[in-house]
Amino acid sequence: MHGEIIATGTELISGRVTDTNSPYAAARLHDAGLVLQCITILGDEVALFQETLHQALQRSQFIIITGGLGPTEDDITVAAAAQTLNLPLRLDDYLLQRIKDCLKVRGLPWEERYGRLALVPEGAVILDPGGTACGFSLKYGNTWLYFLPGVPEQMQMLFDLFVLPPLLSLASGGQSVCQRTLRMFGLTETQLEVLLDKICKDNPMVSVGLYPNFPENHLCLTIRGPEPRVLEATLDRLTQDLAEAAGDALLGTDAVTLEELVGKKLRAQRLTLAVAESCSGGLISHRLTNVPGASDYFMGGVVTYSNQAKMELLQVPPETLDHYGAVSAETARAMALGVKELFHTPVALAVTGIAGPSGGSPEKPVGTVYIGLGLPDQVQTRHCLFHGNREQIKTLTAQTALDWLRRELQHDSHLSGH
Amino acid sequence: MHGEIIATGTELISGRVTDTNSPYAAARLHDAGLVLQCITILGDEVALFQETLHQALQRSQFIIITGGLGPTEDDITVAAAAQTLNLPLRLDDYLLQRIKDCLKVRGLPWEERYGRLALVPEGAVILDPGGTACGFSLKYGNTWLYFLPGVPEQMQMLFDLFVLPPLLSLASGGQSVCQRTLRMFGLTETQLEVLLDKICKDNPMVSVGLYPNFPENHLCLTIRGPEPRVLEATLDRLTQDLAEAAGDALLGTDAVTLEELVGKKLRAQRLTLAVAESCSGGLISHRLTNVPGASDYFMGGVVTYSNQAKMELLQVPPETLDHYGAVSAETARAMALGVKELFHTPVALAVTGIAGPSGGSPEKPVGTVYIGLGLPDQVQTRHCLFHGNREQIKTLTAQTALDWLRRELQHDSHLSGH
Repeated sequence: MHGEIIATGTELISGRVTDTNSPYAAARLHDAGLVLQCITILGDEVALFQETLHQALQRSQFIIITGGLGPTEDDITVAAAAQTLNLPLRLDDYLLQRIKDCLKVRGLPWEERYGRLALVPEGAVILDPGGTACGFSLKYGNTWLYFLPGVPEQMQMLFDLFVLPPLLSLASGGQSVCQRTLRMFGLTETQLEVLLDKICKDNPMVSVGLYPNFPENHLCLTIRGPEPRVLEATLDRLTQDLAEAAGDALLGTDAVTLEELVGKKLRAQRLTLAVAESCSGGLISHRLTNVPGASDYFMGGVVTYSNQAKMELLQVPPETLDHYGAVSAETARAMALGVKELFHTPVALAVTGIAGPSGGSPEKPVGTVYIGLGLPDQVQTRHCLFHGNREQIKTLTAQTALDWLRRELQHDSHLSGH
Repeated sequence: MHGEIIATGTELISGRVTDTNSPYAAARLHDAGLVLQCITILGDEVALFQETLHQALQRSQFIIITGGLGPTEDDITVAAAAQTLNLPLRLDDYLLQRIKDCLKVRGLPWEERYGRLALVPEGAVILDPGGTACGFSLKYGNTWLYFLPGVPEQMQMLFDLFVLPPLLSLASGGQSVCQRTLRMFGLTETQLEVLLDKICKDNPMVSVGLYPNFPENHLCLTIRGPEPRVLEATLDRLTQDLAEAAGDALLGTDAVTLEELVGKKLRAQRLTLAVAESCSGGLISHRLTNVPGASDYFMGGVVTYSNQAKMELLQVPPETLDHYGAVSAETARAMALGVKELFHTPVALAVTGIAGPSGGSPEKPVGTVYIGLGLPDQVQTRHCLFHGNREQIKTLTAQTALDWLRRELQHDSHLSGH
């Protein structure tokens, strides 16, 4: 199966927005053994889009078209494609009702131009995951066409649900394909490559991809064969081997985020958490509260950007700040103790550091971060030195703090007595 | 001048590496008023590369080709292009000597295959910035071809030095190009389109692009003419007209973020800010602290996810919580007052709401948010109803709260007495 992607949107061709949908789809298609031969990025020009689609139809068995499904003048893909394919546009009643319902929920009045959203080429099958976004597929001769929205979350969800599975089953011809993504944090790319080399040598039937996904690395294992159950069992064994080889660096085997993992473990152990942040500026709390139901175990946080706030809210002794400085293990320890007290929680994270670009010194350069981990019976601290810009240092600080807590909750010897 | 980019490399088509060269060049070409009509990303397939190049030659006055200049079998672009252009390859003595020198410096022995690196099509002009990377350009009929390495730093340096300047001088033919981006928040796309229609009608010489950039919308105005000063003056007038028509929805005319704008205004007015967050979970603090130097005006924040924390840290009266609920204008008001007190600041933001997916009710559905804005002499509250998933509701909550503060600081009648 050979295919291609046509990504449309003036924002992509003007360099204002980088097309992330195509790399997303490209990686998954590649991992599944499907051949993507070409990605074409276009503006909203009818003639060039039609020329590109025409050529794609000559050489590809599947074509994924993203963007241009909206209600504005710029949204040209559906009408332009219908013309190229010589198919009439029909008004889809289901889509029309769906649009009206969406407008109603948002309290917006109906407008003529929304009618465009319900026009699809004859023969189109609506791809509707039940949210706000829809797409459609179309079989034309021997080519499968998929029309998806350009918004990354929508495109990627529809791709995973409605594009990859049928392509896989078309491509495999009786073979089954199993795939698993392993999310890693804490090993360098070189360390991961050594691990991968070993897996590949011992298991020649498995193909492995390594995808940096800052601040994590993702490993994707793909395997084919007649028996899905055998494939799953092989992947289970490989995951087990990898977990042993990689130790705690394996975050998980599915799309669960680090903050979800931490939340699950806190909930299972009936523990509650509070967070005191200086250099990460609220990012740890933000990530924790991205998880639905976080209020069950996350009691709250403080962002103490000033020494005064560290003293008043967290009871950090002025002598500690004077003697060791705001960026020190001692201050991180005091902050962790203080925030445990403030929110009455058995577990706490505290971070203090220099996110830059200014504020560094020879002894404490930009990227210096101290993390305090408060547990029921003790407080531990850790020193880190991160490299990168302000946002990267904030990201690494939050990730490292949450990851430390995850590892601690995994080996819950400290906490089992609680 | 119309042009396109052909980016080659198996790593790009397998999703392992995202092509950053094309967006880099696209943004600079667009800003310079040059039209990039298409970006094609290919693997190392000779036939498809030749087909793509052939089509590009029909429709483009400049073609930038990246990748495939190396010494390995996969590096196909030079030989494949020479064949398509029907030009003989010649051994360039200068390049050959350069390669030998490079090998010598690195202590590497000469190998036959390095000879490939010195082969270029007849008529090529070597682009040599004096480092390790080279490219070449070639005039073919009316089309300028640029062959650049795929390594981002090398490609981008060669692009800036040897591609953009000649294209600019070719394209302008005595004309100047001026461009301005206007960042908007608070109007729907439909409202913006009505505004744009009017501008376009009144100013046919201006081209306008609308780019959704959740949660903002960006407008890009481009204008060409002989006199740069006249163009700038026209853009000034248009910006002024738009600012009046759009009211406070215009955030600014450059790449300054909302949190930077808020920071600038707070600093100019010598005000300090504290933040109390419930449903936004730390995101407002996170955004404020993404700005270097935020500690000058941002004193800190609290994330109060429980009623207990709202009472203990922010002195929200238990009767308020009992009578009106945690998600209410009265609680938002009490939180704003409490956090002003806690951090001793004249200005405060407080938010409380339901980010979902659960926790909604018929009277207070998911997306219900109350914002409190504490000013030196008063506290105002506002009720919002947002749509979207949990992350989108958090994003809209933070954006709306920060935007409200920005508008208030713009019309600083409340604050001038401070």
